[in-house]
Amino acid sequence: MKRVALLLQATLLFFGGALGTHAHESGGHDMLGASVLALPTGDLGVVIERATGSVLLVAHSQPRIIKRLEGLGDLSHASVVFSRDQRYAYLFGRDGALTQIDLLTQQVKKRVAQATNSIGGAVSSDGKLVVAQNYAPGGIKAFDAETLALVADIPAQPGATGAPSKVVGLADLPGRRFAYALFDANALCLTDLSNLAQPKTECHLAGKQPYDGLVSNDGRFYLAGLFGEDGIAFYDDLYPERGVQKILAGYGRGEQPLPVYKMPHLRGWAVAGDFAFLPAIGRHEVLVVDTRTWQEVGRVPVKGQPVFAVARPDGREVWVNFAFPDNGWVQVIDRKTLAVTHTFSPGEAVLHLEFTPKGDQVWVSARDSNAVVVYDTSTKTEVARLPARAPSGIFFTYLAALFGR
Amino acid sequence: MKRVALLLQATLLFFGGALGTHAHESGGHDMLGASVLALPTGDLGVVIERATGSVLLVAHSQPRIIKRLEGLGDLSHASVVFSRDQRYAYLFGRDGALTQIDLLTQQVKKRVAQATNSIGGAVSSDGKLVVAQNYAPGGIKAFDAETLALVADIPAQPGATGAPSKVVGLADLPGRRFAYALFDANALCLTDLSNLAQPKTECHLAGKQPYDGLVSNDGRFYLAGLFGEDGIAFYDDLYPERGVQKILAGYGRGEQPLPVYKMPHLRGWAVAGDFAFLPAIGRHEVLVVDTRTWQEVGRVPVKGQPVFAVARPDGREVWVNFAFPDNGWVQVIDRKTLAVTHTFSPGEAVLHLEFTPKGDQVWVSARDSNAVVVYDTSTKTEVARLPARAPSGIFFTYLAALFGR
Repeated sequence: MKRVALLLQATLLFFGGALGTHAHESGGHDMLGASVLALPTGDLGVVIERATGSVLLVAHSQPRIIKRLEGLGDLSHASVVFSRDQRYAYLFGRDGALTQIDLLTQQVKKRVAQATNSIGGAVSSDGKLVVAQNYAPGGIKAFDAETLALVADIPAQPGATGAPSKVVGLADLPGRRFAYALFDANALCLTDLSNLAQPKTECHLAGKQPYDGLVSNDGRFYLAGLFGEDGIAFYDDLYPERGVQKILAGYGRGEQPLPVYKMPHLRGWAVAGDFAFLPAIGRHEVLVVDTRTWQEVGRVPVKGQPVFAVARPDGREVWVNFAFPDNGWVQVIDRKTLAVTHTFSPGEAVLHLEFTPKGDQVWVSARDSNAVVVYDTSTKTEVARLPARAPSGIFFTYLAALFGR
Repeated sequence: MKRVALLLQATLLFFGGALGTHAHESGGHDMLGASVLALPTGDLGVVIERATGSVLLVAHSQPRIIKRLEGLGDLSHASVVFSRDQRYAYLFGRDGALTQIDLLTQQVKKRVAQATNSIGGAVSSDGKLVVAQNYAPGGIKAFDAETLALVADIPAQPGATGAPSKVVGLADLPGRRFAYALFDANALCLTDLSNLAQPKTECHLAGKQPYDGLVSNDGRFYLAGLFGEDGIAFYDDLYPERGVQKILAGYGRGEQPLPVYKMPHLRGWAVAGDFAFLPAIGRHEVLVVDTRTWQEVGRVPVKGQPVFAVARPDGREVWVNFAFPDNGWVQVIDRKTLAVTHTFSPGEAVLHLEFTPKGDQVWVSARDSNAVVVYDTSTKTEVARLPARAPSGIFFTYLAALFGR
């Protein structure tokens, strides 16, 4: 309780400072009479506080906490996407709840229980639909992005048990289309929602247990890691006639895999210009792949089993965090030399990393240190440490303009 | 006058509709008592009305005009960049005025006469500085992005007349650095403002009369077209030790150049995935260049002398407009086949094109038709036509997260 009180006080101090220096800060009241301090939505972000079912609304120009929202359910493995206009944050809870947070009023606008187990979602390229990917019942559901009215329900193909497969790696493609993987049905699917009355879904066998997926920021390349075998399922949306191919098959051939302490499945891979950086599951390595040939061009030995490899928006660096027992570390890979150049210990149990829009700062969540740590990426120095309750995912609104985010 | 009255009425109707359907729309009053209808800044944009010294604030989720701001000086060739938090639009007028528009209060916050002839600017990668590129007096000036206080003044090298060169093609690079070209001094310069007390500038000879420039969205490749010779000056910021190279030298060799009716110099080129699309000055062609080798891989014959080639954010299409006398046309080049697939006549004197964040729509300004025409890029149909007074440049806030925009 003491920590909360301190946090609120710190937030108020921040506001006081901001009001003192910004003559035109837009304060006022909303239509319902509630006090509003309108902020430019391009400056905002959401930090998940997984253990307490709460989130922090944050701003990055001057790293600060704006407000805490509570009572949001089971947020273990929760993730966030933003509406195209950057007004709403859509929060997907592990309990299947979809929460629409209004970043202008800084309040929850709507909350629906849309499944019983969900791990994320995506917004259509035209901004009209928000789509949930569900474990149970397995499949995807599409909602009107403004009202959250259900507009399409697409069950997934069944796995071995006969139940619809768990869905992972949902990402938007151009033209109201979505790509995703079926963990239990070993498939990669494409759903076209351009005609809501007649959704079209097409699936391809992709390999054993696709467990993660991402699309490149231009919505072209979709990759899904395979948990059940060495290799990665690959789809090029510029050439759909080529179907799904397997790349990097047998990247760990002949070696004894390490025990897997954490199954990364929340967009843990990075595309940085010519290269993709892929955490190799069960290994202390990041694989480097040429994005033109999709052949391996190098491996970077790192401190532990990588979970997230995140590219700085200029593609010059890739920052990596690790699974237990190495989850107190963060390492920086230089894109030019493919060598580790920096090693940090931001705190205990580093769960996530996110860059500011042009990568001058990176925000790191250290769950067991109850802190979000902000680094200046030029100087590699810590510039801010924000108190947070067991923080996990960090999401900034600028991601709304990128495919797959 | 009649048009203005109609426009205002239309705007009020839009507001009425929005208020009716959005229960949580944030209306209120600002600190000065003025009425504020806070909007999510990620939805906003600015359209230049060049002849009347005014701009339109627009929103793209439902294409609409929010407000007109007037009295902004000479806006021929005006351009806009946005603050990192997407709160401010910085408008650079041809008369050297820099206007800071607050998108939250929808009012001009500050206006400074910073030169006598200016053609644009850029915001530093950390969001702290806004920098103007000037024709007269030639050079660049850096301002605090919040207060517009002058923080650095860097005169350009002189040209043949002894006066500091005109600056063109200013773009931000990672780490508070900027690239730009000197039209009269035939040079490409890099200025580092990470230490404001000691700015560092380094210039390279680049070829005759660099007249335009762009940096790729990741801040890596800088290209400047040469007006005085065939060819393009090229700099790869990942390999600064390689200096400035010339690429595509003699792309028009042995041919009689066409008379040039318009000198394009406002980022008229596109990088779409593996390819760059470059309007060939004095020709009815768009050059296609491989971004790995920087060799020409094709030419697309088009309807006139291209001015802007703009890539859809997913890189699947490049939309092109033309110089007089073909400036009533727009053509679409397919990135896969490198063929023209669609030809439009949106109106008279098409001056600019801009895509919505993920490219589902494109906004086209038709100056002599007094209209901004919005197309659905999937169906290639017109979906809205907004009245505007002789519109030219169109700029959306999501560009704040991209280098060079």
